[in-house]
Amino acid sequence: MFQISASYTDLYQLTMAQVYFKTKPESEAVFDYYFRKNPFDGGYAIFAGLGNILEILEYLRFTKEDIEYLKIHGFEADFLEYLQKFRFRGTVRSSKEGDIVFPNRPILQVEGNIMEVQIVETVLLNILNFQTLIATKASRIRHSAGNKVLLDMGLRRAHATGGYFATRAAAIGGFDSTSNVKAAEDFNIPGSGTMAHSFIQSYEDELQAFRDFARIRNKNCVLLVDTYNTLKSGVPNAITVAKEMEKSGEQLYGVRLDSGDLAYLAKETRKLLDHAGLDFVKIVASNQLDEYVIKSLEEQHAPIDIFGVGTNLVTGKPDAALGGVYKLSEFNGEPRIKLSENIIKISLPSKKQVFRLIDENGMFYGADAIGLVSEENILKMFHPFDVTKNLELEKFQKEPLLQKVMEKGKALIPKQSVSEIAEFSRKRLALLPEEFKRFQNPHTYKIGLSEQLKTLRDQLVLDRAQ
Amino acid sequence: MFQISASYTDLYQLTMAQVYFKTKPESEAVFDYYFRKNPFDGGYAIFAGLGNILEILEYLRFTKEDIEYLKIHGFEADFLEYLQKFRFRGTVRSSKEGDIVFPNRPILQVEGNIMEVQIVETVLLNILNFQTLIATKASRIRHSAGNKVLLDMGLRRAHATGGYFATRAAAIGGFDSTSNVKAAEDFNIPGSGTMAHSFIQSYEDELQAFRDFARIRNKNCVLLVDTYNTLKSGVPNAITVAKEMEKSGEQLYGVRLDSGDLAYLAKETRKLLDHAGLDFVKIVASNQLDEYVIKSLEEQHAPIDIFGVGTNLVTGKPDAALGGVYKLSEFNGEPRIKLSENIIKISLPSKKQVFRLIDENGMFYGADAIGLVSEENILKMFHPFDVTKNLELEKFQKEPLLQKVMEKGKALIPKQSVSEIAEFSRKRLALLPEEFKRFQNPHTYKIGLSEQLKTLRDQLVLDRAQ
Repeated sequence: MFQISASYTDLYQLTMAQVYFKTKPESEAVFDYYFRKNPFDGGYAIFAGLGNILEILEYLRFTKEDIEYLKIHGFEADFLEYLQKFRFRGTVRSSKEGDIVFPNRPILQVEGNIMEVQIVETVLLNILNFQTLIATKASRIRHSAGNKVLLDMGLRRAHATGGYFATRAAAIGGFDSTSNVKAAEDFNIPGSGTMAHSFIQSYEDELQAFRDFARIRNKNCVLLVDTYNTLKSGVPNAITVAKEMEKSGEQLYGVRLDSGDLAYLAKETRKLLDHAGLDFVKIVASNQLDEYVIKSLEEQHAPIDIFGVGTNLVTGKPDAALGGVYKLSEFNGEPRIKLSENIIKISLPSKKQVFRLIDENGMFYGADAIGLVSEENILKMFHPFDVTKNLELEKFQKEPLLQKVMEKGKALIPKQSVSEIAEFSRKRLALLPEEFKRFQNPHTYKIGLSEQLKTLRDQLVLDRAQ
Repeated sequence: MFQISASYTDLYQLTMAQVYFKTKPESEAVFDYYFRKNPFDGGYAIFAGLGNILEILEYLRFTKEDIEYLKIHGFEADFLEYLQKFRFRGTVRSSKEGDIVFPNRPILQVEGNIMEVQIVETVLLNILNFQTLIATKASRIRHSAGNKVLLDMGLRRAHATGGYFATRAAAIGGFDSTSNVKAAEDFNIPGSGTMAHSFIQSYEDELQAFRDFARIRNKNCVLLVDTYNTLKSGVPNAITVAKEMEKSGEQLYGVRLDSGDLAYLAKETRKLLDHAGLDFVKIVASNQLDEYVIKSLEEQHAPIDIFGVGTNLVTGKPDAALGGVYKLSEFNGEPRIKLSENIIKISLPSKKQVFRLIDENGMFYGADAIGLVSEENILKMFHPFDVTKNLELEKFQKEPLLQKVMEKGKALIPKQSVSEIAEFSRKRLALLPEEFKRFQNPHTYKIGLSEQLKTLRDQLVLDRAQ
């Protein structure tokens, strides 16, 4: 749907690129993408957006209009000529899309000409931060909803066209379907929808509105029952229509509750439906749902079959953003770090590999080990700051998480469907022990450094501190 | 940048449209756009997004691929043929973009064929809700920042391509410039930017990085001074470069602080700069700023000239969404309301006009009066629910807020630049008394109904309640 031009970036990327162009245009750099804190005070995140990034990077260009526009910022002619021919020809090593990821370890690494890797920073952060946020939110809602059906219906409250990518990420995080037609079409996500209050209001009579809708709707018929009075009018009228449908060999698919006390109304609605012999009619609930409300509804055994989630899903409330960063870790083959007053914010130098430790039961052990990419194996890992803590790694399987997915600007992996990514994510999440998934004070997924990486990092810190 | 297709909608809009197509395709409807609560617990909102909506509505089409895709949802051939020819040919009456708006009164009204006005609901809410949220956030930040310069630098944390529209809305709400090149280009917003930590890290030496940047940068040179140690390294190196620039007849534009205690560091930096005879060098501050942090910095008299705001601006934290709705108020000439258990959620029927009351000093009085569009003048207004309250309106100027901006699908107003809209918004905000602008418990901007409207609404409520 959206053609993203290379000018979808921050102006300072171009200002810096011009300086590189004039002083060291052949320089090579390595940047790490990672975040510092799990979203929603949770115990993990779901990495999403990689597929879009690979497509965007392959086709990224400045348009003629972009180049013309940049003249007013005083860029020089030779640099503008460079931009006109700009292509991204770098290498990307990445975690798999849909994988479970954690703070303060590289999730993706970009390597290539300094100007190229700098210019793509913004779009990369823009797409990965947002989709990772939403996929994680979706995953939390899925955790509360168990096997119930989850429907994304947030487009009207989404951040303009960001809603398109929200739907993609929601599907990766575990949503079954979406109301967003364009995203459903482009990403091959099941589409779904019910009816609006205005439809019923357009009739003098709720029953007639239901009858017309049931007769002419395209697919599964869901009737919205709370326009006037849920239990006195909406549900009884829906039952009348359901019985009429039965006579012509059809089945009413469901009724939707969109206001009031959902637990109470769902229970009363279920009773009325069952009493009418309509135990197959599903109950859809919506209205400001999130992982906490759904958890509460489940704990109350509200007989809801389908949850429709909007605002809280697509805006990633309350966080609204994932603070993913893109930090220089190598420049012309030399390791680089970013210091900080806050020790946890000191970055890790050089090209790295992240190993996920798998325990004897095949489950995620609860820690990742990070080493230099040149290290074939890591036998022992060390706490990043606490010198008293280390762990022998012999007994673990070690799964390398970062794989080359793009080389010289060409994607190396086939384009994955959203459902494939979602399926992979589900399988990976099943390997994560429950204590990392709970909402209250989840367990911290730890990190350890190889001796070589720790020594290098410590040496660079000392060098800079002098 | 973005071509929005008509399938950028919720699936249920199409399902309902098909029912209308089969049962009453010539029906006409009126929908009101409004929200129920000011964002950020504030006292007002800035209406934004209208310009985009008019452009989108003029060109909205289903593509061939959209029609092909919709077949899998079981829509019928004659309806798909209708969609293929679908154009929006309705009428839009609207508040001016950039105007100050308040809850529970129509901000925009769409009128036309029921299928058309239904299909456009989603994109309309999607664009208006988001931009109104962000313009309001920007306006609040502007309120804290006084005449200081405000720079939007949020693209990397924005909701994917929603960031494009966030920048537009931020400019309407009072931001001076943006780092977002594409949005700056398309919306003619001043572009700006500084430098990143990675640029400095790419050098062995901070001073050399500053020198190269100062020599080759395109426009105003701002040096980032917190990569290693702000007061011991960054600022002294910036001063060295500033003095070198002076020798060649140039001036350093500014230094940027991006971490630490900004109030303290700004004061110390100002001292160092002034002591070196560099009182013209500006101080730029960034790092998780919002209206509250900026207010605090201003109260501490932090000598900051330019605030760079990112995440909190472009994501509209903490609200993250404006809950604007689109409610049916008339169907085939008959008034319609939506009932609710919550009295405040009962909608207002029929086509309406909103009058802003202007007091004898030319300021907004603190209340809007709503009447039927057929009423030429309203002499008295009534509290929506409290029968003991009413107000004579003789002494007020009454400014009608809703004007026809689109007729038969053609925009009636010339395309406005973002700077024109921002200028209008600034002037309107100046008419709003201060007590509506404060962050803590702002005054409520009241609402009154004409006798005719109130009588009609009450009658419809009674009819439905029976």
